[in-house]
Amino acid sequence: MPGVNAIVAVASGKGGVGKSTVAVNLALGLAAGGHAVGVLDADIYGPSMPRMLGISGKPVSTDGRRLEPMENFGVKCMSMGFLVDEETPTIWRGPMVTSALQQMMRDVNWGALDVMIVDMPPGTGDAQLTMAQQVPLAGAVIVSTPQDIALLDARKGLNMFRQVDVPVFGFIENMSYFACPHCGERSEIFSHGGARREADRLGIDFLGEIPLDIAIRETSDSGRPIVVSQPDSAQAKTYRAIADKVWEKVSQILAARETSMPKIVIQ
Amino acid sequence: MPGVNAIVAVASGKGGVGKSTVAVNLALGLAAGGHAVGVLDADIYGPSMPRMLGISGKPVSTDGRRLEPMENFGVKCMSMGFLVDEETPTIWRGPMVTSALQQMMRDVNWGALDVMIVDMPPGTGDAQLTMAQQVPLAGAVIVSTPQDIALLDARKGLNMFRQVDVPVFGFIENMSYFACPHCGERSEIFSHGGARREADRLGIDFLGEIPLDIAIRETSDSGRPIVVSQPDSAQAKTYRAIADKVWEKVSQILAARETSMPKIVIQ
Repeated sequence: MPGVNAIVAVASGKGGVGKSTVAVNLALGLAAGGHAVGVLDADIYGPSMPRMLGISGKPVSTDGRRLEPMENFGVKCMSMGFLVDEETPTIWRGPMVTSALQQMMRDVNWGALDVMIVDMPPGTGDAQLTMAQQVPLAGAVIVSTPQDIALLDARKGLNMFRQVDVPVFGFIENMSYFACPHCGERSEIFSHGGARREADRLGIDFLGEIPLDIAIRETSDSGRPIVVSQPDSAQAKTYRAIADKVWEKVSQILAARETSMPKIVIQ
Repeated sequence: MPGVNAIVAVASGKGGVGKSTVAVNLALGLAAGGHAVGVLDADIYGPSMPRMLGISGKPVSTDGRRLEPMENFGVKCMSMGFLVDEETPTIWRGPMVTSALQQMMRDVNWGALDVMIVDMPPGTGDAQLTMAQQVPLAGAVIVSTPQDIALLDARKGLNMFRQVDVPVFGFIENMSYFACPHCGERSEIFSHGGARREADRLGIDFLGEIPLDIAIRETSDSGRPIVVSQPDSAQAKTYRAIADKVWEKVSQILAARETSMPKIVIQ
């Protein structure tokens, strides 16, 4: 995609692990680091970016050819959620999903971006396969809870990206533990540490752990994600640290791409 | 399906709301009520029934035509998880999903069942549409967390079933609240009461609320769901109460079907 330096998928083997919450805070963390960031909400079946980024309304076209992306908190965004009614079930056959994704990539005036975060649909079905095959992904991060069943699905996600030669930047453990707001005691509701162990076992990086946390949930639900609404909180710092690691990975990919490109030398 | 009296889908608009955990405990609750129960794990992309029911091994065929279902805790089960490798991503195109689901319905020797619980894949895509259209569902229950975004997707699920004229028996609120095991104080991590309010608003029944609970999670993960491993617990009682409500709905459907069937009267 011309103008877009690197595309990074945020994926999960199963739904409900908080992938979209991680994606939006990761995008905002990258933007906080001074990068030009776009978010493509590719979760056709359950688009949540409009709500999480606090954006309503419909995108318009200024040139009659391409749609302008929506924008908030300095981040550009396109989502199927802008184009379909919130209450209508999106019952789409595979080829329609492919076509919708392609349009959201190509027929949107994204402008110049350092990095585009793609909030992938959860799982390893048609839409994910299409993305992984057709989009020139610089890499992917995989979000999982520490729970065995989620890790099993995370491993499937990893294998899917490996099959199509997309580098996996690492695992993020979400809902890593819960700290009771009343007594401060920690409960490992979905177990703990599984994603880190799994990453070690599989020989990929571990990017960080994020607690199950009411403030993170409420701020995402209300369209003011914690990285922008409570930038000094521990949670926001955790997200920014993860964003820094992702940016480091992106930089390595860009540097490698640079050296492998033919140079025009003027003598 | 000959021999199967009623088929009930357990569905959710989004993944990760604990649909499979609810499905397995609902099935075991129905079995505890003395009914002959089967579980069809239709979650092709992330089958979790083998693990949750503590069943390993491969199903065999005794007549060379149909597979025998697997069984544990008195409940019969068929799952794609028995047929594919746990670590392999199941990247299937729509028509393959359709075909796999049909085979798991027709080419399995289910025998006589009072009720078959179908653990649907989350969402409103191809697989769900296929199930809702091709399977003679007596009804569906929809599992949601109280969170706004999950409720939005639950509503989409409801609309999908309504479009294909499948009665929705009601909503179940999962992860309804969390009680700290250290201090006993309650935290409404994913909010609370949203599914009940949404059910009221939409004019459908509310079947019950189930807390976010480490014992429920651990027993499901380890293949001994709480309804069978801790039958006297409050959590097991909640599940059995929900099972009773579902059975009441099934009985109404069966009674209505009975009266609408032509009678052969021998005089």
